[in-house]
Amino acid sequence: MSNTKVLPLLEPEAPESVVPCCPPLTERPLTAGEAERTARMFKALGDPVRLRLFSQVASHEGGEACVCDISDVGVSQPTVSHHLKKLKEAGLLTSERRGTWVYYRVEPSVVAAMGQFLARVD
Amino acid sequence: MSNTKVLPLLEPEAPESVVPCCPPLTERPLTAGEAERTARMFKALGDPVRLRLFSQVASHEGGEACVCDISDVGVSQPTVSHHLKKLKEAGLLTSERRGTWVYYRVEPSVVAAMGQFLARVD
Repeated sequence: MSNTKVLPLLEPEAPESVVPCCPPLTERPLTAGEAERTARMFKALGDPVRLRLFSQVASHEGGEACVCDISDVGVSQPTVSHHLKKLKEAGLLTSERRGTWVYYRVEPSVVAAMGQFLARVD
Repeated sequence: MSNTKVLPLLEPEAPESVVPCCPPLTERPLTAGEAERTARMFKALGDPVRLRLFSQVASHEGGEACVCDISDVGVSQPTVSHHLKKLKEAGLLTSERRGTWVYYRVEPSVVAAMGQFLARVD
């Protein structure tokens, strides 16, 4: 008899109901639902400290960072953790716990979709 | 003798100290100053009603719209005017008065810079 066990599948940590939105800005007006979702992401980047943290994660070696890698933003470590959580809730970062630390990484599809939404203006 | 007069030069209506910012997200962390400026623009788009108005202006015929062209966002005309002004203050829209109405237009350089800031993640 085999002693292998079926391990439960681990669901990847997905942000709640974040769909990379929307049509390019000039194509048509956003619907109320699209605007609601997208505004949530823009709002998450609408705070200077949060935006600096976001750019520290994005530009860190290997494209990921933990609280232990963040420096020079002028706020305490619990505040950094709080802001990183907010960015994750908005779907802009994903996270993975490894040992003592939670590592954050930019969610490329969501951020690229925001970029495309804005980039097509002429 | 000529009766021509030298007309004063009209300064174009420029948003206050808005510089299309920043390096691509993955290149290096934003400085405090860059984050301050850029967060202001993201914050302006971080409200669902304001974001819908912004997309109505961007997708309107000719790339411009006045309050008289805006419909179906569920807020009063004075509220629409207030939001359009906020978007202008953030440097995302420019405006021009023609007759009775003020016409708003997306500022392509600023919005494209925001798009590029986000688009280079991989």
